[in-house]
Amino acid sequence: MRTLQDALLALTSYWTERGCMIAQPFNTEVGAGTLNPATILRVLGPEPWHVAYVEPSVRPDDGRYGENPNRLQTHTQYQVILKPDPGNPQELYLGSLEALGVDLKAHDIRFVEDNWANPATGSWGLGWEVWLDGLEITQFTYFQQAGGLTLNPISVEITYGIERILMALQGVSHFKDIAYAPGISYGEVFAQAEYEMSRYYLDDADIESNRALFESYATEGERLIELRLPVPAYTCMLKCSHVFNVLDARGAVSTTERARAFGRMRKLARDVAQLWVERRAELEHPLGLAPSPEPAVARQVSGPSEPATLLFEIGLEELPAGEVPKARARVREELTTRLAATKLPHGEITTYSTPRRVVAIVSEVAPREPDTEQTNRGPKAAVAFDADGKPTKAGEGFARKHGVDPSTLDRVTADGVEYVAVRTTVEGREAPAVLSEVLGHVVRALRADRNMRWNDSELAYSRPVRWLLALLGDVPLSVAVSSLGSGTTTRVHRTADEPVVSVASADGYPEFLAAQGIELDASVRKEAVVAQAIELAASAGGTVDLVGEAALVDEVTNLVERPNAVLGSYEQSYLDLPGDVLTTVMRKHQRYLPVRASDGSLLPHFVAVANGDCDHDVVRAGNESVLRARFADAEFFFNHDLAVPPATMKEKLASLAFADGLGSVADRALRIARIAEALSDRVDLAAGDRKVVTRAGELAKFDLGSQMVVEMTSLAGTMATEYARRAGEPEEVAVALREMEQPRSTDDPVAATVPGAVLALADRFDLLVGLFATGAKPTGSSDPYGLRRAALGVVKTLREQPPLGELTVTDGLTAAAAVLREQGVEVADGVVAEAADFVLGRYTQLLLDEGGEHGKVTAVRPLGERPVLAEQTLRYLDEHEGDAVLAAAAEAMQRVRRILASTDAVEPSIDREYLSEPAESALAETVTETRKRLGENGYTLADFVGASGALVDAINRFFDDIMVMDSRPQVRAARLGLLTSVRTLGDGLIDWDALGSTAKGAKGE
Amino acid sequence: MRTLQDALLALTSYWTERGCMIAQPFNTEVGAGTLNPATILRVLGPEPWHVAYVEPSVRPDDGRYGENPNRLQTHTQYQVILKPDPGNPQELYLGSLEALGVDLKAHDIRFVEDNWANPATGSWGLGWEVWLDGLEITQFTYFQQAGGLTLNPISVEITYGIERILMALQGVSHFKDIAYAPGISYGEVFAQAEYEMSRYYLDDADIESNRALFESYATEGERLIELRLPVPAYTCMLKCSHVFNVLDARGAVSTTERARAFGRMRKLARDVAQLWVERRAELEHPLGLAPSPEPAVARQVSGPSEPATLLFEIGLEELPAGEVPKARARVREELTTRLAATKLPHGEITTYSTPRRVVAIVSEVAPREPDTEQTNRGPKAAVAFDADGKPTKAGEGFARKHGVDPSTLDRVTADGVEYVAVRTTVEGREAPAVLSEVLGHVVRALRADRNMRWNDSELAYSRPVRWLLALLGDVPLSVAVSSLGSGTTTRVHRTADEPVVSVASADGYPEFLAAQGIELDASVRKEAVVAQAIELAASAGGTVDLVGEAALVDEVTNLVERPNAVLGSYEQSYLDLPGDVLTTVMRKHQRYLPVRASDGSLLPHFVAVANGDCDHDVVRAGNESVLRARFADAEFFFNHDLAVPPATMKEKLASLAFADGLGSVADRALRIARIAEALSDRVDLAAGDRKVVTRAGELAKFDLGSQMVVEMTSLAGTMATEYARRAGEPEEVAVALREMEQPRSTDDPVAATVPGAVLALADRFDLLVGLFATGAKPTGSSDPYGLRRAALGVVKTLREQPPLGELTVTDGLTAAAAVLREQGVEVADGVVAEAADFVLGRYTQLLLDEGGEHGKVTAVRPLGERPVLAEQTLRYLDEHEGDAVLAAAAEAMQRVRRILASTDAVEPSIDREYLSEPAESALAETVTETRKRLGENGYTLADFVGASGALVDAINRFFDDIMVMDSRPQVRAARLGLLTSVRTLGDGLIDWDALGSTAKGAKGE
Repeated sequence: MRTLQDALLALTSYWTERGCMIAQPFNTEVGAGTLNPATILRVLGPEPWHVAYVEPSVRPDDGRYGENPNRLQTHTQYQVILKPDPGNPQELYLGSLEALGVDLKAHDIRFVEDNWANPATGSWGLGWEVWLDGLEITQFTYFQQAGGLTLNPISVEITYGIERILMALQGVSHFKDIAYAPGISYGEVFAQAEYEMSRYYLDDADIESNRALFESYATEGERLIELRLPVPAYTCMLKCSHVFNVLDARGAVSTTERARAFGRMRKLARDVAQLWVERRAELEHPLGLAPSPEPAVARQVSGPSEPATLLFEIGLEELPAGEVPKARARVREELTTRLAATKLPHGEITTYSTPRRVVAIVSEVAPREPDTEQTNRGPKAAVAFDADGKPTKAGEGFARKHGVDPSTLDRVTADGVEYVAVRTTVEGREAPAVLSEVLGHVVRALRADRNMRWNDSELAYSRPVRWLLALLGDVPLSVAVSSLGSGTTTRVHRTADEPVVSVASADGYPEFLAAQGIELDASVRKEAVVAQAIELAASAGGTVDLVGEAALVDEVTNLVERPNAVLGSYEQSYLDLPGDVLTTVMRKHQRYLPVRASDGSLLPHFVAVANGDCDHDVVRAGNESVLRARFADAEFFFNHDLAVPPATMKEKLASLAFADGLGSVADRALRIARIAEALSDRVDLAAGDRKVVTRAGELAKFDLGSQMVVEMTSLAGTMATEYARRAGEPEEVAVALREMEQPRSTDDPVAATVPGAVLALADRFDLLVGLFATGAKPTGSSDPYGLRRAALGVVKTLREQPPLGELTVTDGLTAAAAVLREQGVEVADGVVAEAADFVLGRYTQLLLDEGGEHGKVTAVRPLGERPVLAEQTLRYLDEHEGDAVLAAAAEAMQRVRRILASTDAVEPSIDREYLSEPAESALAETVTETRKRLGENGYTLADFVGASGALVDAINRFFDDIMVMDSRPQVRAARLGLLTSVRTLGDGLIDWDALGSTAKGAKGE
Repeated sequence: MRTLQDALLALTSYWTERGCMIAQPFNTEVGAGTLNPATILRVLGPEPWHVAYVEPSVRPDDGRYGENPNRLQTHTQYQVILKPDPGNPQELYLGSLEALGVDLKAHDIRFVEDNWANPATGSWGLGWEVWLDGLEITQFTYFQQAGGLTLNPISVEITYGIERILMALQGVSHFKDIAYAPGISYGEVFAQAEYEMSRYYLDDADIESNRALFESYATEGERLIELRLPVPAYTCMLKCSHVFNVLDARGAVSTTERARAFGRMRKLARDVAQLWVERRAELEHPLGLAPSPEPAVARQVSGPSEPATLLFEIGLEELPAGEVPKARARVREELTTRLAATKLPHGEITTYSTPRRVVAIVSEVAPREPDTEQTNRGPKAAVAFDADGKPTKAGEGFARKHGVDPSTLDRVTADGVEYVAVRTTVEGREAPAVLSEVLGHVVRALRADRNMRWNDSELAYSRPVRWLLALLGDVPLSVAVSSLGSGTTTRVHRTADEPVVSVASADGYPEFLAAQGIELDASVRKEAVVAQAIELAASAGGTVDLVGEAALVDEVTNLVERPNAVLGSYEQSYLDLPGDVLTTVMRKHQRYLPVRASDGSLLPHFVAVANGDCDHDVVRAGNESVLRARFADAEFFFNHDLAVPPATMKEKLASLAFADGLGSVADRALRIARIAEALSDRVDLAAGDRKVVTRAGELAKFDLGSQMVVEMTSLAGTMATEYARRAGEPEEVAVALREMEQPRSTDDPVAATVPGAVLALADRFDLLVGLFATGAKPTGSSDPYGLRRAALGVVKTLREQPPLGELTVTDGLTAAAAVLREQGVEVADGVVAEAADFVLGRYTQLLLDEGGEHGKVTAVRPLGERPVLAEQTLRYLDEHEGDAVLAAAAEAMQRVRRILASTDAVEPSIDREYLSEPAESALAETVTETRKRLGENGYTLADFVGASGALVDAINRFFDDIMVMDSRPQVRAARLGLLTSVRTLGDGLIDWDALGSTAKGAKGE
């Protein structure tokens, strides 16, 4: 059996044979091999760099005292940097797995989207996690930025997770059982350190002295930047980073502190990077300059003489699943448009995409564009020729310009005037020339949501484009894009006997690929996924919830080129865990389809979808073991948590810092409970609901003290419900505890019960006021506390909970401010208004995002304080789009508002002494009557418009008959007072002025 | 060519194939691979451990900005630990050199004594530095203690200096030129970091914040000990250690701070070690227990029937040169004594020793001990037999005890009484049995100045004993000592085709070995060294100073088993360097014999002495390149220093901390100058000398600011002279600057000029008073400032400088105290007296060490304040050993002192009113007269004794005639006053009472 140290030596041999230098682990704690200067500094600048090294990587908060089978505070990374990207890094990587003894044909090895970012150093890249039968064994990244600098050339970073790989290769289920060296297990050597360092990091590190260390190293690093010494400055930055991680593992970092520390580290990292680049330049780049790729050149090609099928394939490294359909759409659109801009006749355009290719097939492409005739008009005939019919200077000039004899000039007539002209025939281009250009543009036009660079000087896309295949019938086309030239081969599964195959003809390409084990058509792949999954599930007596798993099925479809579903099982006993835990693990982490019984309950099976041929038993065993490890983790946490009553679990919250100036999470939970009480008072909650709010408030957030939620934060709230139920809490309380976290994301539903909604609102009001009060409101793209999401949560909850419809945003914020002040937080005047404005701003944006018309959305904005009302009004406006009564009311009200806006404000009044004209009396009477009809308060826009007929008539008559700005002050005042009374009737119902365009539109103006 | 990374891989492969686990460099800065927990913790306790790893080792003060070809702030160690000692670690090590491509037969590879200690961790071991043609490439140590704990089993530690080895293998002369990886040089990768980290460590690290870091990590480590977490505690200790090294490189550590910091680190390391051992035991030693060696068992052997030669060889790993003759002497003595205690007849005993063996040859060893007869006496015959001649109970009992019939009892007569007796014959033992026992004892009795343990459970010696060869004639003997059993083979040069050879017979062994290239006889080896050196030197037109290099010749003789001298050369240009620099490098660092011209000046050649066969060209080239590198270093420093005028150089002293509370070295230099002025005043120095003292005082210690002295501290003073001369200072000043450092060691001469002596005294008076005043006086074996040496320097200088003979120790200390007080140092009352007492104590010890008789030394102790006087007096006593006049004077004075000691003290007086008896008057008169003869002051013991005839008579007469203790008070008082006057005459000349035994001896009592 290969020991862990054998594996390290095998990797070292493999990569040195491929030109890598061997570096040593860094002699300061690093969280990952990336942070070794041999990566983070060397990827900067123009020098080439090929390096490989082992890096024991320290993640203090991953310490588990050596007890968790898969989690260690120090794990072993093997790190490889290839700079510049050699063009075939995936193939090189797969070779290294073979060197490790992995049978590539037996296993299911996959490149699954995983983008990497290290905020502390301002670094990021795009790439994948590599799966070995569902086990993440490697991080594979195209490094795009480091220290805030855009990289050129691009480095490929390959980071192997050695313990995981070895556990899989050796078939052991606990890291301690890994054979480390002959006769020595991992545990025998490292278990003690795992225990003790976990103790240090999690329990015993002194917080105050570590804070001082952070400050000391940061200051030293900053000073060294001034001295232009990037290397020691970077060491200081690493020491900062480690100390920060220790503090974090000790639970001693509030969100505010985190943001501040990251800001400082990022600045330091950027300064280091900048300075390193400068210093290397000053040293004249001791390692030389990395070569640039040669640009490809298109050859001239003769095409077939008959119409033929065009095949164009863009070969890629694995696209993210979400990009697969987008890539196809983009190619289709671009190709269609570009072809349409030529004169080349062609038939139907068909496009396909898989993770590794986008294929366009165009039928019946003509051999060439037709010739076209062109007429170039010259001067008037009368000018070109003199009276004698002899060409003038102008005529001669025009003829010479077109290289013809003046005597051969044609004549054309336009608007009755005769001109001389030259007619020329424009020859149509050959299809290969046309297509070479068009297809080049198609490649250049590739664009994804997130784009990256590789070893190409021009192209940028979601993942590297590695080959182009272009055939017209059986004639190879020549397409050149940047350094990429088209050929006549395609690449099939990397594990095929012949991974690169020649393609003889464009015709029958989908069938050709199918024979190679690749299914181009996504719908066929999807059907296969579904059919295989259903069949396998059935074989285990179950089924798959195709509706519930629709998104996952789509994702899986685009993770493979040919689905090869494998049924796996897990121990029945895990079904004792909450279903949400199991499905979260299966779906989110593993992309497995859960198998369910007909009643929807989980069965101990799953369907994993492999890519292409593999050894089912090997792949099943691998996936099962991954899932078992994850479930074992979850079970460990679950059982651990169950032993702790909710109230006890909640005690831990006191030691979790929340945010600067806002105390611990326990303080926050207490505030939420208090605010929920205040809101309950405000809406006069029913006694039953009230009891639920009180109890759930007492337990608020308790599951943040559970191990399960620490591990899987997305289960916050969910676990609260589970644990509360099992602790014997009333079902309503258990549910409210989950609902107070809702909505967790844009798609998440809001709380369904009133107590849940009250708590959810309290949570968010506290967050908003607390952070606005402490000056931590969002800026630009930075919103570390998710205040935008919180604001949306407030309005969504309010609008979907009619029982709370009376509650305004400001009510809630005011209640939160009061509770915060009770806890001693200083909430300045104006904070509530500022927060309310922020919430309304988000609400407006939400309505627009939901398709609301800009005008109408603006019009209902004043109602945002009570979203129920705003939505109701919006619906009314939609339903009365073009309604004459509404339009008339709006116009009348706007007229009133316009004139009042141009004068000094007056109080509403009906001063009959000075309102003697009939139109005045009529309006005054109608106002009084309308007011009576509508009641003192609580009428809506609909009510108002419904009651507005007489009022509108009276207003219009008033304006027709009365000159408002009378020279007599009393009269003028009385008229303005009357109009103000009219305006007041419509106040708060809508933004009448914003309603303008809509209303006007209705009138057909 | 093998690159550096190839070399690391080759070592890794080599050692993994031999069962080593591969560990990783530690992720905190360490100064050496030893400090990686994979060594320092794992060598503790009973678990086996075989490990190999690379360790980039950080030595801040070795930073040279990447400019020095051989010195780096981070160099690469390759570290191997073999626990337990496998029994053949040297052979394994040599195999690893072959794996690196070293041709062992061509090169001269040597194990040269080098003992290792790491005070910061309380660790030490004995072993060697391994030389490759004079280049130190590896540290090879038998680890004896770690963290203050004695190790069992013992670990072998092998530490390769990778850069040095690669420079030698690749034949490059600057580390930057090492081929690190294919196409990449060391400099291209690491030069920037070398520069920047040197900048940080030497110039830019913030001192205050690093001090705070030290405190913080130390405190954290101590706290973690309380929590029983040795692993994180050790990490804290390492961080302390690195921070300390940074502070030290910044010149920010005073000697006091150093001692304090080391104390703290050592305590931490000890606690960690203790705790680690406990924790491993609690964990039940996960790696199991290392096997113990099997004890050897001696067989019964039949010896030859005729007298035969005994050959006994004790095979060793390379002894330190100094131990080689001692080993021989010890074996000779032990064997002689032990054999004498047997009855085995034998001839001459001849012994030899080389670094690898001690051989004893005993001629004519008889086949067995002779039989002997023994008589056992019983009861008196009269008791054993009754009157009837029948045996009594007593007689029967005695006979039974000896197993004989009572009737056969013999009779013996003693002192005229007849006893019964039994006569028995004791058979002599066979020679093999006798020798087996004797030789076993000889091995067990091996003992050196410093002893160590290896993989043997009983033996302890300077270096491991690896084999025993024992033959009696051609019969193999069986000697068993602990786990070591004797055989019939010996080991010759490790590079021989057959390194282990059988020995057939004891006869002719020296010749047998000579044929194998080994010269047993040290005197023959020495002659060979001398002859070869002289011959080689002559071939270069020079000679070797055999007198000056006698110690080195002896050392070299005992570094090899067969001298093979090689003549090397160096560039003529290096002769521009001061000769002391060149010879210091050649002798101390390289054990090369300098070649000189007939006038004693250096020629650019040296003689290196290799061991046995080798390729002269290879060895010459290697040694030359080592010397060239060292000279290049020295030249670099020298030229650098020459560019700096002494006064400027001296400015640096302000930034060198001296000792807590005693300011910088500049402060100290200033004090020395001031004290020297004061001493000059005291002894009324001649104007010329005075001028020299003043100028040399201004420059005092300036060379401590030179790079040369920083590198080679033994050249302090020497370089001052060199640099002062070249800066145009007067020769006397230049000389005084060197002399002020003298004596530097026990054998070093004291200052020869008066100004030099004044400065040397000032230096030491300052040191003594300063450190006594600040509470830093020596305790036990701890004397970090060398105060004992300073005290000896004071007295040696005083006694050899008659012009300063008037100066007392207290005078000097008092002057120093005054100057210290001027600088604001608080010097408490009593400090001067305490320091003076310390100096006199050391002086007494010195006199005893020099062979002084205890009584005489005690007698002159009161004169120690003026060593010139003390020595003069001592000489007088020696010369007057047995002198009757002296003895009479002493007895008389003692008689006076005895009677006075038993009464209350009175003032000296001559009260003639009450001194009326003739003996009284006579004594009174003689006292007065003697006093007149001797003068008021300034007479010595010799003067006194010379003048004492009349006085002694008068005293004796006085005591004969007079009863001192008369009942009349006035009379008694007058008599006592008279005697006190007598006593006063002898005061301060000698300790009269201590003189007792000597004087008495003279009288034959």
